[in-house]
Amino acid sequence: MAKHDPDLNLIFQALSDPTRRNMLAMLGQGAQPVTVLAKPSGMALPTVMRHLSVLEDAGLISSEKTGRVRMCRAKPETLAAVDDWLAQQKALWEGRLDRLEEYAMKLMEAERGTGPEA
Amino acid sequence: MAKHDPDLNLIFQALSDPTRRNMLAMLGQGAQPVTVLAKPSGMALPTVMRHLSVLEDAGLISSEKTGRVRMCRAKPETLAAVDDWLAQQKALWEGRLDRLEEYAMKLMEAERGTGPEA
Repeated sequence: MAKHDPDLNLIFQALSDPTRRNMLAMLGQGAQPVTVLAKPSGMALPTVMRHLSVLEDAGLISSEKTGRVRMCRAKPETLAAVDDWLAQQKALWEGRLDRLEEYAMKLMEAERGTGPEA
Repeated sequence: MAKHDPDLNLIFQALSDPTRRNMLAMLGQGAQPVTVLAKPSGMALPTVMRHLSVLEDAGLISSEKTGRVRMCRAKPETLAAVDDWLAQQKALWEGRLDRLEEYAMKLMEAERGTGPEA
């Protein structure tokens, strides 16, 4: 369903902030309550909640409230979309290098064919 | 030099726009003049220049003006910073899975030690 498709615009936007990348790194080590995630930044809770909401909208984390505690979890499968995009870029780049190599080989062969020994 | 250090904030911000990702994909196939990069989007030249400037500030492309033509080139080495960041995230995640496995093994061993056969 479209709602669950990873959206690279939202993902890259979410990753463009160091506080949010720190939060993701903390969650990489396991689920954490919002209060723990808030500690290193020293930010006010509403600011922290705003950052977490950007990460959640991008599908990079999920959160669940039990009683008065909101637990956050990383969704590493969403980062696979970034991995796929990078792989596509590399394929374009390497395809280009292959074509350059092919061209260089043709030039060398042509040169050999018309060289002084020919 | 700090000026040339890849800045993940700028890189992810630059990648959060589909027009800029399309431009990068076009440049993955080789250097292009600004006018060619402008074509698929149908955007006005000042808008295109603004997008290219965001990509250049992030170190994702370089550009050079010769006469009236500005040529743009991809700098794929900058994407390596994104690759490194992803690898760090995966390491955190996998380290966590390893610790979970270790914990599960210990639980199983403890259970075996105190099981009905013991």
